[in-house]
Amino acid sequence: MPTRPVSRREVLKTATGAAAALSLGRTGSAQSPAPTAPQGATMVGVPFEKRAKVRFAIIGCGGRGTSLLHDILGVEGVEVKAVCDIVPGKVARAQAMVTKAGQPAPDGYLKGERHFEELCRRGDLDLVFVATPWRWHVPMAVAGMAGGSHVGVEVPAAVTLEECWQLVDASERTRRHCVILENCCYGWNELLVLNLVRAGLLGELTHAECGYIHDLRQVELFKTDGEGLWRRFEHIGRNGNLYPTHGLGPVARYLDIHRGDRFERLVSMSSPSLGLSAYRDRALAADDPRRSETYACGDVNTSLLRTARGRTVVLQHDVVSPRPYTRINMVSGTKGTFADYPPRIFFDGQKEEEWVEVRQKEGRLPGGIEERYEDPLWKRLAKPAEESGHGGMDYVMVWRLVECLREGLPPDMDVYDAAAWSAPAALSEQSVAGGNVPVEFPDFTRGRWSGRRA
Amino acid sequence: MPTRPVSRREVLKTATGAAAALSLGRTGSAQSPAPTAPQGATMVGVPFEKRAKVRFAIIGCGGRGTSLLHDILGVEGVEVKAVCDIVPGKVARAQAMVTKAGQPAPDGYLKGERHFEELCRRGDLDLVFVATPWRWHVPMAVAGMAGGSHVGVEVPAAVTLEECWQLVDASERTRRHCVILENCCYGWNELLVLNLVRAGLLGELTHAECGYIHDLRQVELFKTDGEGLWRRFEHIGRNGNLYPTHGLGPVARYLDIHRGDRFERLVSMSSPSLGLSAYRDRALAADDPRRSETYACGDVNTSLLRTARGRTVVLQHDVVSPRPYTRINMVSGTKGTFADYPPRIFFDGQKEEEWVEVRQKEGRLPGGIEERYEDPLWKRLAKPAEESGHGGMDYVMVWRLVECLREGLPPDMDVYDAAAWSAPAALSEQSVAGGNVPVEFPDFTRGRWSGRRA
Repeated sequence: MPTRPVSRREVLKTATGAAAALSLGRTGSAQSPAPTAPQGATMVGVPFEKRAKVRFAIIGCGGRGTSLLHDILGVEGVEVKAVCDIVPGKVARAQAMVTKAGQPAPDGYLKGERHFEELCRRGDLDLVFVATPWRWHVPMAVAGMAGGSHVGVEVPAAVTLEECWQLVDASERTRRHCVILENCCYGWNELLVLNLVRAGLLGELTHAECGYIHDLRQVELFKTDGEGLWRRFEHIGRNGNLYPTHGLGPVARYLDIHRGDRFERLVSMSSPSLGLSAYRDRALAADDPRRSETYACGDVNTSLLRTARGRTVVLQHDVVSPRPYTRINMVSGTKGTFADYPPRIFFDGQKEEEWVEVRQKEGRLPGGIEERYEDPLWKRLAKPAEESGHGGMDYVMVWRLVECLREGLPPDMDVYDAAAWSAPAALSEQSVAGGNVPVEFPDFTRGRWSGRRA
Repeated sequence: MPTRPVSRREVLKTATGAAAALSLGRTGSAQSPAPTAPQGATMVGVPFEKRAKVRFAIIGCGGRGTSLLHDILGVEGVEVKAVCDIVPGKVARAQAMVTKAGQPAPDGYLKGERHFEELCRRGDLDLVFVATPWRWHVPMAVAGMAGGSHVGVEVPAAVTLEECWQLVDASERTRRHCVILENCCYGWNELLVLNLVRAGLLGELTHAECGYIHDLRQVELFKTDGEGLWRRFEHIGRNGNLYPTHGLGPVARYLDIHRGDRFERLVSMSSPSLGLSAYRDRALAADDPRRSETYACGDVNTSLLRTARGRTVVLQHDVVSPRPYTRINMVSGTKGTFADYPPRIFFDGQKEEEWVEVRQKEGRLPGGIEERYEDPLWKRLAKPAEESGHGGMDYVMVWRLVECLREGLPPDMDVYDAAAWSAPAALSEQSVAGGNVPVEFPDFTRGRWSGRRA
């Protein structure tokens, strides 16, 4: 089976964090559903309606939601109208953040798991952020759009392929945007590379590599709060590339995915599953119920994606091996190659066969390339970004999204991007379960991927 | 077609280097031949006969052959009896090298392309090296074994799967070893990592990555001598991972391939073919006949291998993109990860989430790991190796092979390794041509892969 759902019994076997998984009652599935019939016109290139103020709400005020709220409070023109969480103390904390920032206290929604539906029905919200456990993203995003709000959804936007289509359908039907909150697209390096690529400095692109290599064993997966309450369960029931968007989002932008190209095929391979059980056996007490868990997810998943124009992408996932963090973030073309961790570049014909390091504010590249191609967003926002999460990319992301809303621009990423960047999780499960067979990548744009956009 | 042979007409279209390809008249094929019926007992674990002197010959005295000859002249107990090349001047140069080293002049074989057969029939040779263009490796190795010599074959040992089986059959039938001259297995880093792995310092292995990323456009592929005479043609007729062994050999040793595990499946994807034509259009005169060549081989090939024990390997090939050299050389397990370029290691539980650089003679790792796990070959040979090619690995390789012959040990690598490390080229062509389908990896050992060896 591509995705073995977390069974009720398995969840009950463990001591912690069963609540969300149990009550949600959703199960993954990597069956590849046929494209749905469109229920509205395309959302490709559709601009936001221009507005002076953005009336904002956030669903999920845990670690991630709080961080996003902090960032949005630093952006001009945003009124925080409502906050929602199932934990009353987290709602109160979020409300206090808002009043401390000089705004009126937002309404709190804290009456159980379905109270978000009431928030979504308010009718006075321009933008709702969803920062909850993965399995809640789609029902909340769909409710937000149905209530008339544009939504920003944390990553992955969806878990299953059905969910990817649900987002597409809802966005087209409601004429609301569903924007994936892929902060890594707004990193200083990622935007620099995007500008280099668009200026043609790497030539014609052939290949990219990316991934999410982040040892989460101690910091997330076995914690007894936060993501520790639910994220480990994904490793029990699924074997694939569970968390693709941090790596794939920026690379999809380099490759003009849905703006001249699209992902067409994926093939995937997973290593044995050893890391979590080895860690657990070493770190937990002998009578800890988590010691009886069995993890399906291979430690290292490597997926290969092929685009319509034949370009290739290596996409990796490893959150359980002892390795330093990397999203890889590499792209190669006929005139040069960029690779990250550390950020470095090589241009064809350069004298020494050596990488040249790329550094923000310490331009070493010939012709002052760092300065010339630094993104205007960073030129403008470097200072406030400094106080924000993840090296500033979070602030740049939310600032830019609010700008698009206020200026009446189309969003940088639309629902088709949200679906295509999230889909490799389910597609890789399918490929792995089928013996590393190639699987066709759905065209979420329904044929509208080849046009260039401004 | 998986491997489009270089046609006579295509070869004639070009100005240079047609001789070897034309006269050889061999074509690649990625049809997966069934295992042949064994014509002799296994060569797994078979020791060389002990001998005081090693009577040696080399076929191919070009750049690579000359370098190998230089190294072997620096090893005690070797008598160079014969040298062979189709270019008389290269034979003379090789003979002069031998006399200059204080040995009698070896016999020269220079009467055309088939004179090597006479060399192989001499009957007084213990070891014959083959350092010729790829398509000649197998006929020469088979002739060497048929003549009673053990053979050392340059990489890749074979081009097609049929050729892989020809090597296996010949070795089993003649009871002679066929050793792949995979120098990268003897690099200081690679041997250190092998020793760390064998000592269990990386825990149970899950995943490895390797490749051959080497911009050969100017230095090899478009030269008008040496490899420029034939190597570019492989890119005209084939699309896959053309040169797998430099990356895969060391990784196969880390993973105990044929000593407890084996490669079982391969799936492969190639990027578009842009690099060679872009370079050619820029670098060659408008009337150069090479400008009419068409290259089938994708710039970047990424292949995924799965072992019987479920471990995964990423194997890449790119010799046409503007990028600095790397063989990647990465291996990960439950207790740590090593990665190369630059060489660095991370052990589980270490305080900082940062790689620690690994440096020969500058041990920085805790507990003096570099010194403790430096290979005994390097402890012994560091000095003579310094004057040898490729950072010393060539000298260590030939010294070690001669030691095995003189001491009556089994070789470090046998014909099954030669076949399995070379086979990904043909297998990847098959997978790419079939739309990135998984292909089964032949078991060249005929079932004898699971036993540990001393």
